Amino acid sequence: MKKLTEDILYQVIKKRPEQSHKGTYGRVLIIGGTQQFGGAVIMNALAAVNAGAGLVSVATDPSNFTALHAHLPEAMVIDFNDDLTDDIQHADVVLIGSGLGNRLDIVEATFDAIMARQILIVDGSALTLVAENKLSWPQSQLIITPHQMEWQRLSGVTINEQAFEAFNMLAQQRMNVQPILVLKQHHTQIYTLNQVFEIPNGGPYQATGGMGDTLAGMIAGFTAQFMLCFPEAIMAAVYAHSAIADELSKNQYVTLPTKISAALPEFMSRYAK
Amino acid sequence: MKKLTEDILYQVIKKRPEQSHKGTYGRVLIIGGTQQFGGAVIMNALAAVNAGAGLVSVATDPSNFTALHAHLPEAMVIDFNDDLTDDIQHADVVLIGSGLGNRLDIVEATFDAIMARQILIVDGSALTLVAENKLSWPQSQLIITPHQMEWQRLSGVTINEQAFEAFNMLAQQRMNVQPILVLKQHHTQIYTLNQVFEIPNGGPYQATGGMGDTLAGMIAGFTAQFMLCFPEAIMAAVYAHSAIADELSKNQYVTLPTKISAALPEFMSRYAK
Amino acid sequence: MKKLTEDILYQVIKKRPEQSHKGTYGRVLIIGGTQQFGGAVIMNALAAVNAGAGLVSVATDPSNFTALHAHLPEAMVIDFNDDLTDDIQHADVVLIGSGLGNRLDIVEATFDAIMARQILIVDGSALTLVAENKLSWPQSQLIITPHQMEWQRLSGVTINEQAFEAFNMLAQQRMNVQPILVLKQHHTQIYTLNQVFEIPNGGPYQATGGMGDTLAGMIAGFTAQFMLCFPEAIMAAVYAHSAIADELSKNQYVTLPTKISAALPEFMSRYAK
Amino acid sequence: MKKLTEDILYQVIKKRPEQSHKGTYGRVLIIGGTQQFGGAVIMNALAAVNAGAGLVSVATDPSNFTALHAHLPEAMVIDFNDDLTDDIQHADVVLIGSGLGNRLDIVEATFDAIMARQILIVDGSALTLVAENKLSWPQSQLIITPHQMEWQRLSGVTINEQAFEAFNMLAQQRMNVQPILVLKQHHTQIYTLNQVFEIPNGGPYQATGGMGDTLAGMIAGFTAQFMLCFPEAIMAAVYAHSAIADELSKNQYVTLPTKISAALPEFMSRYAK
Repeated sequence: MKKLTEDILYQVIKKRPEQSHKGTYGRVLIIGGTQQFGGAVIMNALAAVNAGAGLVSVATDPSNFTALHAHLPEAMVIDFNDDLTDDIQHADVVLIGSGLGNRLDIVEATFDAIMARQILIVDGSALTLVAENKLSWPQSQLIITPHQMEWQRLSGVTINEQAFEAFNMLAQQRMNVQPILVLKQHHTQIYTLNQVFEIPNGGPYQATGGMGDTLAGMIAGFTAQFMLCFPEAIMAAVYAHSAIADELSKNQYVTLPTKISAALPEFMSRYAK
Repeated sequence: MKKLTEDILYQVIKKRPEQSHKGTYGRVLIIGGTQQFGGAVIMNALAAVNAGAGLVSVATDPSNFTALHAHLPEAMVIDFNDDLTDDIQHADVVLIGSGLGNRLDIVEATFDAIMARQILIVDGSALTLVAENKLSWPQSQLIITPHQMEWQRLSGVTINEQAFEAFNMLAQQRMNVQPILVLKQHHTQIYTLNQVFEIPNGGPYQATGGMGDTLAGMIAGFTAQFMLCFPEAIMAAVYAHSAIADELSKNQYVTLPTKISAALPEFMSRYAK
Repeated sequence: MKKLTEDILYQVIKKRPEQSHKGTYGRVLIIGGTQQFGGAVIMNALAAVNAGAGLVSVATDPSNFTALHAHLPEAMVIDFNDDLTDDIQHADVVLIGSGLGNRLDIVEATFDAIMARQILIVDGSALTLVAENKLSWPQSQLIITPHQMEWQRLSGVTINEQAFEAFNMLAQQRMNVQPILVLKQHHTQIYTLNQVFEIPNGGPYQATGGMGDTLAGMIAGFTAQFMLCFPEAIMAAVYAHSAIADELSKNQYVTLPTKISAALPEFMSRYAK
Repeated sequence: MKKLTEDILYQVIKKRPEQSHKGTYGRVLIIGGTQQFGGAVIMNALAAVNAGAGLVSVATDPSNFTALHAHLPEAMVIDFNDDLTDDIQHADVVLIGSGLGNRLDIVEATFDAIMARQILIVDGSALTLVAENKLSWPQSQLIITPHQMEWQRLSGVTINEQAFEAFNMLAQQRMNVQPILVLKQHHTQIYTLNQVFEIPNGGPYQATGGMGDTLAGMIAGFTAQFMLCFPEAIMAAVYAHSAIADELSKNQYVTLPTKISAALPEFMSRYAK
């Protein structure tokens, strides 16, 4: 297990090249948010846009469009009941699952449509649906972001110490691209095929609804934008998420997810001098 | 009558344990908000989330979903016309009544569904409905938050000095769990079976619509999160509500409810060092 | 013509008495806002609530409810297509007309329902409807807030110098209660039966859509709250509106209406020490 | 090619004359925003209002009304499926195309309704529709704001160096009023019949969705308000847009479009002393 340090941020977050445009920083498609859990995709999108993704679209229940635009006119909206194949295949990064409820149909259609060269982040309800329905993971670049209970449902192992073995079993079933596991816990761990990384930061002020949705959106924003730093971009996102919470916690008892996203542009600018 | 001091805040608001997750800080279900009074549940929820409740759901008229999410993507929404039994029974704290209008059916169904181990806060319109329809209180842990006119309708006593006797009569009708009365007035009083507490703070800058909805939401957030400090958590919420208003009033002629909620994370962090 | 000074603010804005509640600060009913002009009532309400009115309800097109609550959960909403008689008669101050479009029916019903002891503020589209349809003013306490073109339509006089005579003609037609005219212009004037007052402040940074809606809302908030200072409360509202704009203009090229409302609590607190 | 300097801002942004009203600062009509791309007109409108346009109306899909008003009650809304002829002809400046999708019918109807004395800004999807359908430009004062790919589709020239010739061909086809081309790129260029101007500022922190919608809204706000400074008002808008981004980038990794609009009133006030 390797402990990550602030150095991961310097490694990933670079001054942007002068000659670049929004396409340079990636297209993110977020899929999630039933009516009941619409806040989840709002938090996904706030994180991805504030992290600096070039273009962000949100496929969600239409009842969420107005609240999303009230927060973030920068994002585009799509009805998640429509055929999303084209939208998925035009994205660089697809994040599916935050607040997706029981929409197995959308998970299946997304797994069918996604292509090998794309990054797919699977979060929240989608992880539960994969576990309950024993879905096969698609052959894209895969990032999964379970908390410990979700990981238990997915892997069948109940004890944290066995996580590495279980992850390797998952990884070895895959021929093409190795998956990345972000195992959310007190000090979140990132599993790659050969190594486990752990962040040293974060704290209990983060224990509030929506924190994981914000993390998933940040991973989407970081991987879309820093595509050449894969998988370090994931580690930087996880590290930054907790580092911002640590800073906010100096004078906030609970560090709300939307405040973490709001702090991103200023936080990131410090590492790109 | 015992006057509360700032000490109640030090007593209740503690540094959070490192090993904890959002479930540790409680599930709050807020039930209220007809279309006309939808702002009430928005203010409930802003208070509960900013106070640090782990997970907050709002069962309300669907016309309020978008405005709620525009303020607070951190909260989940439920149509209050649906059967809420499961949602109620999965909550640690249920707050019912702010802006609930004449929805007697929802009050009755909630009183039927609530279980003895749960905290039920009854506020606003629900108190009027209880009084008008002579409903029996359920055998849960009960907190009622009337202002003086609502208390008069509930208890039948018209003079403040008789409040303690009237409260004791109510309390003695209950076999299992003793109720708590938060009697909102110039210096709000908290009645337990044996003792009355009074807050020394607060002022007329708080005399504006929505102040009580914010207080009810704070009580929900504090009791969910500091469940082991019952009933002190209620006293801390009432004290904090007025203490924040006092601070804001130094340079605000009227202290709007939403600003009190916004100040909560910073205010609470001072007591948890 | 008497020039008002900052003294009008000290005269009207007083420290609130300790023993008071939201009813003490008045019930305001705002009627206006078709779908197209829904922003007008949002600006009315932001001004009235931030000025410190006790309770604010907005009767408007239902399509405006969500945007209003996104700004201001503190306000209650009513469908302006419903019979508003009860709502009108329970208000202390009724403001009608901002963004009301061509809803003559609502103006007529309001003029029918309003009672002598109530304050009625007539603004915007309602003034045009009164002029076009030669409606009689109701026998309530009446405040009208035309800009110069609207005043010309109402009074038939085209030149500013004749305003006092025209106003007196209007005033003399009324048996019971004398009207107040707020004639919006470069330096806005307030006409009472015997005297004309002029504010010395304000400037061209206020020349932007919604400025008048904010002023009307402030007049509603001030008269509801400082009812014993009538008509000085109107003068204080007009003076404060421009004084805040003057302050903001020091570092803002255009002083947006919503920013004037946001500045009210801090501004007013300075005069109530 | 002439490089613009900060001097263009001093030249255009003047202290406003005391005797003026909102009509003095122009009526802007924004046409755009399908349901999917509704954020685009919100960003248009935020820019135009914060830049100081006198009155701003937005003709858009009705599903966008609430989110627009949640950001900006100062703007009025119109259903873009209605006949817009009257609205167009009452405007001083019409901006069409941001997020307009494939609504060719609305582009054609706008080109038919616009009159010679009016300023028409054509942006985003409308430019693609013009190119694909080989529409003729109307004989109004015309400003087009393509990025390089859109300009290629419009002009048929693929290489930047040929832009001036291609623009001149377009310009010479027009008998009455010369068009202005704002060619968005690393250092955006403004083409008039005889001369090309380039801004020296801006940077890759601007490479995010919605940046162009904000620029188009600023051009609308500047030309409406500083009509006597044509075409310098366009240059000032383009320069200011990048200058604000440069300032924000000092401590923001990505400079979000909505933050640029929010900074406008303070930024502009510095040039009007």
